[in-house]
Amino acid sequence: MSQEKENISLEAARALMRRAFEAAGVPEASARSVADALVAAEAEGQVGHGFSRLSDYVAQVQSGKVNGSAVPTAQKTGASAVTVDAQHGFAYPAMDLAIETGVAMAQETGCAAMSITRSHHCGALSIQVDKIAQAGLIGLMVANAPAAIAPWGSNVPLYGTNPIAFSAPRKDGPPLVIDLSLSRVARGKVMNAKKTGQPIPEGWALDSEGNPTTDPDAALAGSMIAIGEAKGTALALMVEILAAALTGAQFSSEMSSYFSADGPPPGSGQFLLAIKPGDGPGFAARIEALLGQIAALEGARIPGTRRIAALEHARAHGIDVPVQYLHIARELAGDDG
Amino acid sequence: MSQEKENISLEAARALMRRAFEAAGVPEASARSVADALVAAEAEGQVGHGFSRLSDYVAQVQSGKVNGSAVPTAQKTGASAVTVDAQHGFAYPAMDLAIETGVAMAQETGCAAMSITRSHHCGALSIQVDKIAQAGLIGLMVANAPAAIAPWGSNVPLYGTNPIAFSAPRKDGPPLVIDLSLSRVARGKVMNAKKTGQPIPEGWALDSEGNPTTDPDAALAGSMIAIGEAKGTALALMVEILAAALTGAQFSSEMSSYFSADGPPPGSGQFLLAIKPGDGPGFAARIEALLGQIAALEGARIPGTRRIAALEHARAHGIDVPVQYLHIARELAGDDG
Repeated sequence: MSQEKENISLEAARALMRRAFEAAGVPEASARSVADALVAAEAEGQVGHGFSRLSDYVAQVQSGKVNGSAVPTAQKTGASAVTVDAQHGFAYPAMDLAIETGVAMAQETGCAAMSITRSHHCGALSIQVDKIAQAGLIGLMVANAPAAIAPWGSNVPLYGTNPIAFSAPRKDGPPLVIDLSLSRVARGKVMNAKKTGQPIPEGWALDSEGNPTTDPDAALAGSMIAIGEAKGTALALMVEILAAALTGAQFSSEMSSYFSADGPPPGSGQFLLAIKPGDGPGFAARIEALLGQIAALEGARIPGTRRIAALEHARAHGIDVPVQYLHIARELAGDDG
Repeated sequence: MSQEKENISLEAARALMRRAFEAAGVPEASARSVADALVAAEAEGQVGHGFSRLSDYVAQVQSGKVNGSAVPTAQKTGASAVTVDAQHGFAYPAMDLAIETGVAMAQETGCAAMSITRSHHCGALSIQVDKIAQAGLIGLMVANAPAAIAPWGSNVPLYGTNPIAFSAPRKDGPPLVIDLSLSRVARGKVMNAKKTGQPIPEGWALDSEGNPTTDPDAALAGSMIAIGEAKGTALALMVEILAAALTGAQFSSEMSSYFSADGPPPGSGQFLLAIKPGDGPGFAARIEALLGQIAALEGARIPGTRRIAALEHARAHGIDVPVQYLHIARELAGDDG
């Protein structure tokens, strides 16, 4: 794969992606939601959730694995709880609807739970919890994903890398955003190693017998190592219960691939919480005091600092995207040249 | 310290503890709440949160560090949010009030946030989230604690071992309960090593220079190693924001010791969530399907299995408590003999 890149503005990138989805028959509102989220991930530096996904997403629309025309529906199950059915369409329009509904609920009642079912790949969770914090609320989000982590003591993956994300509003400037998967390293890094034919370091993954491996193929057939041994796998179970059992979605072990166009819809789940801090100046001041303490420590930095720098750079200077991804996007969009 | 133990029934243990607190001037309702929680922790096998705490707790009532007569107050800040002021008394009566209020809110609205401020040592979080699940709801809880974990890249502890706990109701039998601290091992294990004059294994803690240490004194002056490197410390920051910035409590780095009777009240914080699953049979059946899958895997087991076995054994056969702890309890309670 060529490493050559081309610079493109965020606005142009969003418009290009949108046209690529519209050309595949995705209605304008959904095409915009998906395009915006993929470009936002690319701008954050989460390139595994950006342009690299476009051709797989379009192929899944074409095969019917993703219902490109789906319109998500929201059902309020209480004053502080909403369930959104993604209708086997893209996750992004469903998350937009869930967050819009849940944020309004939490502003009113102090707290809201958002369950999303019959969903798809949710990309970078950071982008979703950021929206909750932009509305002045604390955000929490978990999601499941195709099975990659085994319960502690076993070699059989039952859990996805099941990410946890968190956000808190800040008085001035962008929110604090934390976004982490429960595997020691992202599974995408193993996939990249496979693509480039490189071995992986020990400590990333186990083969299907439960032995340490440096072979990316053996790792993908085996399982990813969780953070914190039994603790990380217990957190992965917590995420599985919230993102799948509670939402009514498929478990990680039941889910089809987010990459291949074959098979039934993945039917995955996402779960979000919005929590309203007190109205007074107390919370904002305390957040600044705590983050100021971290920033003042030698060697430490506030989580998400790199993400915010990448976003600011992308807004000012656009993003550098591998040329072959832009080529694919332009072809899908039906652009000349 | 003698290893000799004496068997006592749960009922007798609760009554003995209650009388010990009442003799120190703690009103009956609070004495009962604290005694019940300490005995429940002992019954679960979490002996670091059981009888071993009694003399420190009573000394803190006597010195005024804990206001034994405090009556917690609840303020509803919305239909799904309550803030409980522990009034610098024990955490247990405050958590009882928060859970009672929050569970009723979540039954009504689908979700509730419970913030506890001006609080104290909360003991085993498992006992609190278990109560939420016993009411048919999903429970989440976080708490801060005296600083022990440094932000990633630094050697200066800012976060407590900041535990996370989770519970889910099960159709038959006790709830699923997950309860873990974000340090690789509990700080109590380092304290025990110090008491018995043993070195600690590498990988538990760092000295104040950030170097690996096997010396418990150097470890207690330094910091505990978090799970998952930067990921665990990011989760510790998340807990700090929820348990302290959101609740208005003291940060871990501002907090006095939970052990010593000297100094101002710790003023720590706890934050809990209750989430109502759908009324249909779906959630209960899905939980059983998932936990059944785990139980069927060779080498794996459902988290909390050991806890439930310990509880069942304690209910049937009582608990074995070090004789010197029972001696202290009887002396404090003013028992003859």
